[in-house]
Amino acid sequence: MMGKNNRKKNAQRIPLQEIARLIDGEVIGDEQMKIRGINALDEAEPGEISFLTSARYQDRLPHTLASAVILQKKTSLFDGAQVLVADPKLAYPKVAGLFAPGIPRFLGVSDQAICHNSCSLGTGVSIYPNVFIGEDAEIGGETVLFPGVYVGNGVRIGRKTVLYPNVTVLDDCRIGNEVIIHAGTVIGSDGFGFVQDGGHSRKIPQLGIVQIDDQVEIGANNCIDRAAFGKTWIQRGVKTDNLVQIAHNVIIGEDSIIVAQAGISGSVKIGRQVMLGGQVGVADHLEIGDRVMIASQSGVAKSIPSGEIVSGTPTMPHRVWLKASSLFQHLPEFNRRIREVEKHLEGMEIQRNKE
Amino acid sequence: MMGKNNRKKNAQRIPLQEIARLIDGEVIGDEQMKIRGINALDEAEPGEISFLTSARYQDRLPHTLASAVILQKKTSLFDGAQVLVADPKLAYPKVAGLFAPGIPRFLGVSDQAICHNSCSLGTGVSIYPNVFIGEDAEIGGETVLFPGVYVGNGVRIGRKTVLYPNVTVLDDCRIGNEVIIHAGTVIGSDGFGFVQDGGHSRKIPQLGIVQIDDQVEIGANNCIDRAAFGKTWIQRGVKTDNLVQIAHNVIIGEDSIIVAQAGISGSVKIGRQVMLGGQVGVADHLEIGDRVMIASQSGVAKSIPSGEIVSGTPTMPHRVWLKASSLFQHLPEFNRRIREVEKHLEGMEIQRNKE
Amino acid sequence: MMGKNNRKKNAQRIPLQEIARLIDGEVIGDEQMKIRGINALDEAEPGEISFLTSARYQDRLPHTLASAVILQKKTSLFDGAQVLVADPKLAYPKVAGLFAPGIPRFLGVSDQAICHNSCSLGTGVSIYPNVFIGEDAEIGGETVLFPGVYVGNGVRIGRKTVLYPNVTVLDDCRIGNEVIIHAGTVIGSDGFGFVQDGGHSRKIPQLGIVQIDDQVEIGANNCIDRAAFGKTWIQRGVKTDNLVQIAHNVIIGEDSIIVAQAGISGSVKIGRQVMLGGQVGVADHLEIGDRVMIASQSGVAKSIPSGEIVSGTPTMPHRVWLKASSLFQHLPEFNRRIREVEKHLEGMEIQRNKE
Repeated sequence: MMGKNNRKKNAQRIPLQEIARLIDGEVIGDEQMKIRGINALDEAEPGEISFLTSARYQDRLPHTLASAVILQKKTSLFDGAQVLVADPKLAYPKVAGLFAPGIPRFLGVSDQAICHNSCSLGTGVSIYPNVFIGEDAEIGGETVLFPGVYVGNGVRIGRKTVLYPNVTVLDDCRIGNEVIIHAGTVIGSDGFGFVQDGGHSRKIPQLGIVQIDDQVEIGANNCIDRAAFGKTWIQRGVKTDNLVQIAHNVIIGEDSIIVAQAGISGSVKIGRQVMLGGQVGVADHLEIGDRVMIASQSGVAKSIPSGEIVSGTPTMPHRVWLKASSLFQHLPEFNRRIREVEKHLEGMEIQRNKE
Repeated sequence: MMGKNNRKKNAQRIPLQEIARLIDGEVIGDEQMKIRGINALDEAEPGEISFLTSARYQDRLPHTLASAVILQKKTSLFDGAQVLVADPKLAYPKVAGLFAPGIPRFLGVSDQAICHNSCSLGTGVSIYPNVFIGEDAEIGGETVLFPGVYVGNGVRIGRKTVLYPNVTVLDDCRIGNEVIIHAGTVIGSDGFGFVQDGGHSRKIPQLGIVQIDDQVEIGANNCIDRAAFGKTWIQRGVKTDNLVQIAHNVIIGEDSIIVAQAGISGSVKIGRQVMLGGQVGVADHLEIGDRVMIASQSGVAKSIPSGEIVSGTPTMPHRVWLKASSLFQHLPEFNRRIREVEKHLEGMEIQRNKE
Repeated sequence: MMGKNNRKKNAQRIPLQEIARLIDGEVIGDEQMKIRGINALDEAEPGEISFLTSARYQDRLPHTLASAVILQKKTSLFDGAQVLVADPKLAYPKVAGLFAPGIPRFLGVSDQAICHNSCSLGTGVSIYPNVFIGEDAEIGGETVLFPGVYVGNGVRIGRKTVLYPNVTVLDDCRIGNEVIIHAGTVIGSDGFGFVQDGGHSRKIPQLGIVQIDDQVEIGANNCIDRAAFGKTWIQRGVKTDNLVQIAHNVIIGEDSIIVAQAGISGSVKIGRQVMLGGQVGVADHLEIGDRVMIASQSGVAKSIPSGEIVSGTPTMPHRVWLKASSLFQHLPEFNRRIREVEKHLEGMEIQRNKE
């Protein structure tokens, strides 16, 4: 049973009433019931609550072992307690938050951390052993730095931010409040800038920084390069998945989402609420408008106006790509058909000349 | 000479007889000969043994400087000692193992490692300096943790497992016996799960874990995310190359192979002995059957039944892709030929109307 | 204003005369003027110098706030001081170097670093806390190792080399002089080598090393695997961007450039001054000639002779790819046109049979 692997082992049990209150829900059934966890319909066990976010999954309701289910409309398909809410999709993460174990915190500043005596640490910080904090760095209150985190000179990190193990933040970069940076990510490595000089590459010093605004979440093993001048700028609410590459001077607008292994070349400007699929590549100096959606593995070679949905390398409207790509495997047939038509015409020509 | 760069400098010299015994081989030539290393036919030096795994390379036999060669059938192309075995491909790694320097071990538990006093360490563990081990973590006997390794609270790691430098294993994840995890890899980062709420992304707490079974090898700088619920599960004998992305709730079946920079989206279920080429992307919630082979850079957008060999974006049978992709560069010619046929027909039409 | 984010806060002010001398430039205007930084034309502020590297940008000259501009020919479009040089592209990084803050150095060897007593450290090394240096390792003079760097047994690193935080260099690898390796990169992980044995993968011990020659720069979170035998070899002056994968036994020739997220399979031999675009994949055992350019996202499935410019999967001449890929979205139209021609011919055939 997969459910048995969930992290929360000795969770407190929470009355259903309390859960319903958190999500503005109406309980049908036993309000006093104690809930000990949340799980998917297929994986839930007795004592757990589950949720129905789409009618597509409602055939799972009769089979779930969950003791309670969060859903939009009362159903006869489920015998246990029901919690009716306006939007189960939004209710789910709130309830999951009740059962999440939370980020383990080191109490205070470890004496096995290395903090330069000029650095400034806010109240309630959690600085694990083997952290390094450089000269004049500032760490905001309640921020957590896990082992192996490197914070360079002059770095400023806000409040309630979490840097997971082995994250590197190089000199002078700025990270906002309530930011999460997953393990192994590098912020502020040099932009990839060289000039060619008789076949050799001369390094262009990268004088800028990286700025990451509030409520951004950066995945594991990302690389975000510092700007040549000015800043590489990740704006409020952006979320990146793992192994994402963001080159120097890129700007990513608020609430945009970048899926795993996407790569964004230098000086690209991405709008708000943009969605970049996995393994997408974006060529340098382009502009991607607000709310653009780019399908996985696309190769973006020209700027894209706001609101477009594109696919392919180079990109085209997604609906065009769906048709064109479905025909790709028919190229051998196209070849044959064109040949047959040509032969047919040749045959007619010969016939005509005879007549 | 590349051979000079091999790692083993002062290897002991091993009698050919002993090597032959290890691989059930029959020696033709001097059994007492002392061998000091193994190398490719092109790179071997006197005193080294080499091997012929395919008839394709047999023209290298007359030129090799190796003192002995492992091969399937006696040959007149090589003057030195010959060791005849049923399968030279299998014999090669066994003999290489004799000359491999082995993993350097720290003796016992460094007092410069940070181990929570509630953690449990098996006998013969090798815990290097700058390792961090959290609350209630369990490390099996003879396991090696290199510097910079982070082991979160409640993590369980089996016996004879090796975690190379700067590997991060987050809370509650489980790693089996005889597992190898290469440097910089992150196990148990949060799955990339958000719900949209008026243009903002609300984080979905990721309550599950990662489970890695026995004899798995994970490459460098991989990211394996913890499940939303339950577990992300890498089954026995799986091997991943470097920079691989494995999202939450993915299951990879026994003995599957994932080549570098491949990315697997959430909840994908991969069968046994599957082969994913480099830079492949797999969309979420798909099922890939047993023994499927997916060529490099393919983009998998639909489930694939067992035993298929596919290529392309979206995927198609590999033999179809080979033909179709070879015609891609002829699209301008297709365009011209269709145009000519059209003109020809137009001309005939005009002619006809005149007649 | 982006310019405000530049790293150098209290830079000394440098007379324009001195800057001109460094780049062999001729000053038109006030030679005594004090310059406090360098910036792009659009972002420069009074007191800063800027540069014009292409006539394309000359419409920015009237609007820049820069106090001085480096350019090739005297212009009437800019009122401030002008510094005329033969090649502004080459002058720019030199002047930027004057204002770059430089790499922050720990003075000497931290007593919180772990250095095996058999290791050898050159004069002027900078060994930060939390560095680990193994047995018999050699670190050349003036080399900087940042926190979290792991240097395995028998590793040799040259002079004036910089390893940024959390870089891992495994046993016996060699790194030259004036090399830069960005954070999180792994050098010398095992090559991905297995033999199939009844459905299981048997590990092939990887006996070789990685050798990185002088003046190489390796991006963040790269993986460079050690050779099966001999060496994986990155030759002088090579530059790699972030998240690049280099498999075992690859050789990359002098001054080649590998853009982010490219992946190079085992035993590939790449020539000099080659340019690999972002997210390119190269299949194993191929040869890429000197000065070859491979466009982003290409999939290289066969060897490429020197001097070629290629694109696509599989690769074709870049100019062919441009035409072919622009026609891809017309496949539905091709299909329709072929169908129409076929119908037309059928119609004629029927007509003919009637006559």
